[in-house]
Parts: sequence; C-alpha cells; structure tokens
Amino acid sequence: MTNSLRVTVWNEYRHEKTEAHIAAIYPDGLHTVIARSLQTHGMEVRTATLDEPEHGMTQAVLSQTDVLTWWGHAAHHEVKDEIVDRVHQRVLEGMGLIVLHSGHFSKIFKRLMGTSCDLKWRAVGEKERIWVVEPGHPIAAGLGEYFEISPEEMYGEHFDVPPPDTLVFVSWFEGGEVFRSGCCYHRGNGKVFYFRPGHESYPTYHQPDVLRVIANAARWAAPSGGPQVKFGHVPQSLEPIGG
Amino acid sequence: MTNSLRVTVWNEYRHEKTEAHIAAIYPDGLHTVIARSLQTHGMEVRTATLDEPEHGMTQAVLSQTDVLTWWGHAAHHEVKDEIVDRVHQRVLEGMGLIVLHSGHFSKIFKRLMGTSCDLKWRAVGEKERIWVVEPGHPIAAGLGEYFEISPEEMYGEHFDVPPPDTLVFVSWFEGGEVFRSGCCYHRGNGKVFYFRPGHESYPTYHQPDVLRVIANAARWAAPSGGPQVKFGHVPQSLEPIGG
Amino acid sequence: MTNSLRVTVWNEYRHEKTEAHIAAIYPDGLHTVIARSLQTHGMEVRTATLDEPEHGMTQAVLSQTDVLTWWGHAAHHEVKDEIVDRVHQRVLEGMGLIVLHSGHFSKIFKRLMGTSCDLKWRAVGEKERIWVVEPGHPIAAGLGEYFEISPEEMYGEHFDVPPPDTLVFVSWFEGGEVFRSGCCYHRGNGKVFYFRPGHESYPTYHQPDVLRVIANAARWAAPSGGPQVKFGHVPQSLEPIGG
Amino acid sequence: MTNSLRVTVWNEYRHEKTEAHIAAIYPDGLHTVIARSLQTHGMEVRTATLDEPEHGMTQAVLSQTDVLTWWGHAAHHEVKDEIVDRVHQRVLEGMGLIVLHSGHFSKIFKRLMGTSCDLKWRAVGEKERIWVVEPGHPIAAGLGEYFEISPEEMYGEHFDVPPPDTLVFVSWFEGGEVFRSGCCYHRGNGKVFYFRPGHESYPTYHQPDVLRVIANAARWAAPSGGPQVKFGHVPQSLEPIGG
Repeated sequence: MTNSLRVTVWNEYRHEKTEAHIAAIYPDGLHTVIARSLQTHGMEVRTATLDEPEHGMTQAVLSQTDVLTWWGHAAHHEVKDEIVDRVHQRVLEGMGLIVLHSGHFSKIFKRLMGTSCDLKWRAVGEKERIWVVEPGHPIAAGLGEYFEISPEEMYGEHFDVPPPDTLVFVSWFEGGEVFRSGCCYHRGNGKVFYFRPGHESYPTYHQPDVLRVIANAARWAAPSGGPQVKFGHVPQSLEPIGG
Repeated sequence: MTNSLRVTVWNEYRHEKTEAHIAAIYPDGLHTVIARSLQTHGMEVRTATLDEPEHGMTQAVLSQTDVLTWWGHAAHHEVKDEIVDRVHQRVLEGMGLIVLHSGHFSKIFKRLMGTSCDLKWRAVGEKERIWVVEPGHPIAAGLGEYFEISPEEMYGEHFDVPPPDTLVFVSWFEGGEVFRSGCCYHRGNGKVFYFRPGHESYPTYHQPDVLRVIANAARWAAPSGGPQVKFGHVPQSLEPIGG
Repeated sequence: MTNSLRVTVWNEYRHEKTEAHIAAIYPDGLHTVIARSLQTHGMEVRTATLDEPEHGMTQAVLSQTDVLTWWGHAAHHEVKDEIVDRVHQRVLEGMGLIVLHSGHFSKIFKRLMGTSCDLKWRAVGEKERIWVVEPGHPIAAGLGEYFEISPEEMYGEHFDVPPPDTLVFVSWFEGGEVFRSGCCYHRGNGKVFYFRPGHESYPTYHQPDVLRVIANAARWAAPSGGPQVKFGHVPQSLEPIGG
Repeated sequence: MTNSLRVTVWNEYRHEKTEAHIAAIYPDGLHTVIARSLQTHGMEVRTATLDEPEHGMTQAVLSQTDVLTWWGHAAHHEVKDEIVDRVHQRVLEGMGLIVLHSGHFSKIFKRLMGTSCDLKWRAVGEKERIWVVEPGHPIAAGLGEYFEISPEEMYGEHFDVPPPDTLVFVSWFEGGEVFRSGCCYHRGNGKVFYFRPGHESYPTYHQPDVLRVIANAARWAAPSGGPQVKFGHVPQSLEPIGG
C-alpha cells in the first residue's frame, strides 16, 4: 500500500449541500464518486473540501499527496491565498494537479497558467462528443475514438490558456462550438492536466469514460522521481574559466 | 510614421545612477541604448523607468504600446501590483512583451509564466556562446549559427519556466552550464519573448547581434490583428439543440 | 517589386478540366483564384500545374519561390519522386509550404510529416465552422472568432500528423466531427502550414476568409533570413579541449 | 512475465566485429550491454542485428515488440526499405522507438522526422555534460541535475529535426557546442525518443545514468492502450445533416 499512488480529491462541496437536484445526483458530493473510482484503480485516496479547516489541505495532507484533483465553481474567491500558495509550491515541487471543469477559474489554475483562463459557456443541456486527438498518449488509454456526454454544459473557444504541451482531447458541441478539452502542461517539476467535463447539474462523474480519464490522468501526473533542482548562486564553476 | 511599430523600452534604471562602473557603460541608462537601436529599425520608440509616476506606464502609454521591453533587477518588488495588473491585461489583449535577462524575476514575467522563473547564476565574467536551434524562426533573422558574448554573467538550467512554445536559442557557458536563452510564448492574444543576455556590468546591449535579436523579437511580438475574443455566457447556440 | 513575396501556386488541375460542375466553379482552375487573391495582397505570384514539364516546378522556378502552395487530390502518385525531392530540399533550405485540403495525402506532405497523414472524410455537403484557437497568431489576422463554410467536405479526427508546433484553427462539423484545421510546423529552415478547407466541388476558394488565411499563411511561411546552417565534420573545436 | 514490457534491442553490430578497440569495449556487441541492463529492470528483452535474416526484425518479432531501440552507424544504407516500412508501420500502430546516437541518420528516424536529421560532429574525445531541462518528465527519473560522459563524441547544433514535443536534455560540450540530446515525439499512435550519447569507441553504454535513461525511455515509449483509430470514408454522419 505504501507504494500506491496517493490522490487527494478536492471539492468545493457547496452545490451538493444546497441544491436538491444536484444532491440527487451526488448525495455525498461529487468528490466521493471520483474518490471511489480512483480507489478501484488501486490508488490511496482521501478527500478534502472547502469548508474543512485549511480547506482540508494542510501541509501534512499536501506533503502526502502525489496528485491533487480540483473541482470548484461558485466559491473560488473563498479559497485562501495562503492555501493557493501552498498548493502552487507543491506543484512546482512535483505534485500532479488535475483541474476539472469549472476549476478553470480557480485561483490555483489561473496562477499556474498565467492567463485569464476564460471561455464561453452555455448550460442548456446539450450533447458533447469528446474526440481523442493524441491516441498514443497515456491519458487516452482504454478509450474509443470518442465518447459522448449528454447532456452537458457547453464550454467554447477561445479558451484563454497557454497552448498545451500536449493536447489530448477536443470537444464537439451540439450547439456549434469546439473546445480543447484535455490539456497537459509541465509546470516546475509538476504536471498539470485540465479536463473539461463535469457540470454539477449532470451525472457526468458517474460516466465510466470520464472516470477512466481521471484515473489515467492521475497516473500520468504522478511525480516521476526526477532530479532535485537547485537554484540560485553557484559561485564555483564546473569548468575552469579564463583558462 | 503612424503605421510603424510602437515600442516602449522599460528599465528599472537604478544601477546606472548609483554604480560608477555601470554608468560608464550606460551613461544614460541601458534603455536608451536599446531605444536608439530600435529607432534605427524604423520603430517609434519611447522609454519608461521605475521612478517615473506610474513607473512611466500610464494607461495612455500602454494603450499606445505595441511591444514593451522589460529590464529589471534589484527593485522588482518596487513595481506596484496595479501596474503589473495593467501590463498583464495589455499582454492578454495582444501587446507584445520582451523580457530581458534579470527580468526573469520580474512580477510580470512570473505572473505570465505561473512558475518560479528561478535559475542558477554566477557573475564572474565568462564566455557565453548563443546557438540558434530554430534557424527558420524570424527572431533568428540576420544571425550566424551562433554569436558570443564575453564576458557575461552565467544563467544555468534548470530554468523554471513552462516549456516554450518555440525555443530559438540555447546558450553554452564557459563554466559548464547550458541555458534556454530565447523562449517564445503565446499568452492570451499576446506574444512573449524571453531573451537571456544583458548583465548590467557588461556592455552586452552595445553588441550588434544582441540588439538585432531585440529588434527581431519586437517585430515577431507585435500585435497581429487577430479576432476580438468574447468570453462568458452565450445563451444562444449557433446551431439548434435537441432537434 | 523585387522585394515582394514570391509565391508559386501549385495545382493538380485535373478535376477542373474533366468535370463540368467543378469547371463551373473554377473555370481556369482553382489555382488561378488563389493566385489572383495573393496578387491583390501585393505578392508576386506564378502558378504551376501537374501536367506542365517537371510539373511546372523546375529548379529555376523553385529557386525563385519564397512560398509554395499545394493542392492535389486524385493524382498524388503521378508527382515524380525527383520533384518531391526537390521541393523537400527547398523547404529544408527555407522555402515556405502551404498544403491545402486533400494535399494532406501528397507525397511532399507525407515526406515532411513522417506519418500517414490519414483522416476520416465524408463529402455530403455539410456545414463547417472554423474556430480560431490561437488568436495572437499572425495567420488569424483579420478574422473573426470563427468563420463558416457551407457546404464543405468533412475531414475528421484522428488526423495522423505530428502534433503541430502551433495549432491555429479547429473545425466543427455539422455531422459530429472535429478537426485540427490549421497546423503550423517548423521543418529545417522552412515553415509548413496545413489548411484544411477546399474540396473541389464547392466554391471554398472564392470565400474571402479562406483567401485571407492563405495570404496570412504565405507571409508567416516566408523565409526569414536566418543563419546558413553548416552540417558535418567540424574537426576544430571552438574551445580548447583537455586543457 | 507475460505482462512485462517487451523490448527489442537492435544493433548494426559491425564495428564490434571488425575493430579491436571497439570489441574491447563491447565484446558481444553494444546491444548485449543495453539488453542486460533492461533485463535488470524487469523487461522482457530480445536482440536483433543487421546481418540476421530480415535484420532480425521479422513481422513476428515486431508484432511482439512493445519498444524497439535502434543503434546504427556505418551501414544505414544496408537496411532494407521493406524492413524500414515494417518498423515505420509498427511505430504508427503504437510501438515505441528509441533512437540512439548515430541512429539519427538511420532510414527509420529520417522517415519519421521528415527532415535531414543532420548535425555537426567531432570525435576527439571530449567531455559532455547532459543537463536535465524538464525535471518532471519520467525520462529524467532517478537522475541528478546533470550527468557527465567523458570522453564522448561531440554532436552540435543545428540538429535538423522537428522541434521536439518535449525536450528533456541539453548537452554542453567541452569544445563549445550545445545539443538537444533528449527529444520526445508523438508519431501516429507511437512514441519516439532520440537520445544522443553512445559513440562506439567509448564505453558510454556501460555508464549507469545512460542505461537508466534508456530504461526510463522504454517505459515512457511503451504502447499505452489508446483507441484503435479508423481512417477513411465515413459515409454515415454521427449527427443529422441539413436538419
């Protein structure tokens, strides 16, 4: 068990407590659905939510987290800056981060991307078809050429993020838009994956392909044991100078 | 003249006023040397410095700036956050940004990159040889396969920035390090170029190849007249839904 | 005139001579429509077609060509390998190449990409909506957030090409597919742009936005005057060895 | 054992049979040294060499190969085109390929890259220092910030390959050059890694860090079980057209 991947599933966890139609879909919060799925993949999973002390992301928790998944929406501004700093630092040290759906507007994602992370949206319940455009990428393992989610919220381009290091998915929407739905980034020693689906009003996180992508992404984003990087002044050169 | 590229050359402009050996190299500040060079390329150039009101970057100045070049070092923390916000917003709207040397630690570069932007450094006056690794890129126009700067400060990997969209230069250092010295990024509607050389103690910005790169980068980073992007709620779909 | 961009517009030019409904759209071949448009942008344009000697691409023509545009479809196999070699060599030396629509299966594009360049297709005349996903890129100059072509042939993912250095456009298709429709590549000293639209049965190349993209791409792909690269044995080191 | 990674280590295997000083370093061929190392990582390894029938790469062997490593030098032209076609096809289907050192000029690498794959070289036995520039990449697992090989042959920029999807290593050479020494590419469903070190006259493949990189790369390049991609005519749309 000590060698298994340690994932912390973070959720804002407000909609599910205050809106009956959302509670009906995710009675224990959408984080528990994601967490249970990751457990079935042999990962060691804990959950954390906004209203816990330190939003459930104490230094102790983060230091034992290999990959953090993030779902937030209505209360991004309530996430304390000191916690965002802490998560940011851990990503740069090597922790993986999977940002889900409306997490595009979270403080941590905007901090890591450096752009507005804005997009177009429409929540009328339309069909989304997610196409794999990089079939050799491990995040596409076990999928078909595409999978559909219906109904879903629409997110449309332009998505104001840096061009991804690797683009894995592109979404087609019934209403006429497209979206870069699976975006991989290296940031510091860490790896970041943005995955579009997951509006709270729809049972998206009960869908096997969606859960499979999150599990694949957790494995891809896991710390890979690279070098401890040292920064700053190195007064001594490795080679003689002015020889 | 109205159609020429409008560049604002920003400089912290402190070292040149307080350290005699630096004043000897750049008696009017290093910004004036860069500005004069860009003027010879037919650009419309103004300068701005830290100690001017609003650091010389009023909304009026920025709104008339196509490309901003940035040199800072000892006083990054003195740059007001509201001015950083303003510059950030302008980059996302399409203004080009060229970050020079120690500007790697400026607030605006760290904001746009989302990483620590840290690196190794050593200032003993060694030889740097800058190799072109993407010879078809417009920022390499007019160069040979490499050019040398000697003496220069060393910057060494790991350079904690996102992998560049395009890597144009890689530096060899006499003391044994390498560095990704010319890094292109798309951010929002804007383009960002990081260019490594330019320690204040050496006459780097008097060197023709260095000035040529800055001019090339200004042309590359210029706004290109792309679409006005709209974000947010688009209740009306382009195609019928649920037909 | 000597400083203007020199573009050669290449066309297979068979469909237009043998199929009445296509001749009705492009009575002088689709190359002449593209060529006239590029001339209005101040470019120095010539055309070349498959059935000319050396397919119209003599060494003399290619040596005076800054950017070559390529449309082929039914007769890719008739293009002689020695001409493909010649074009390939010129791209590596710095000539720009714009590959249009069914040119995805041309020998020269497959040679440069190294993959099958295969895709899905369906020619029933459906709506395509091309979204800009990198609004700061010069190939998006003058466009809106998207433009539509209707009717068009569908090309769908997976498109078996290397991940583009920069992805500028993504297409939405009425029938449910998406496609990476504007793909930029550096290859050698040259730049390559693949642009999806242009089925011969539809008047796509009469459409202003399509022509604008081709003109933008020609400017982007133009040789940029970078270093003359030398390869091979360099017995003499730049620095002393074993000092 | 059936689930372990199946690697085929290919070697031209000529120098070791004809040159005494090379035989002294690799008495059974450099492939056996690489193969033994990969076995210690739990991989199922076979070897294949140029002078075997079908160069040891029968359809049966390739169909049971997850990752192929390739070292060739003096006899690239002796590799039969039909075998190159076969390997190429397997890479596009998902087989990983690790190209070592002078394999940069192999037919298969040039086919996959689409460029000349040329470079500068000098074989005087100088120091190479390989720096990690993407520390979060799995190919950098277990390394320090850099490792040294001395003596080695020099390979210098410009390296005429497509810009890598991910650049993991950059080499510093004593004689003054730099080189992009660890380059990752997606091609079709397959993954390709180019790794620079390994001149036959030096004991490079006895060095633990070099072997570690090859093992890391084999794991990274392994097929990841993505979708079976279908190409060609799809007459039936997924959505109604012209509704």
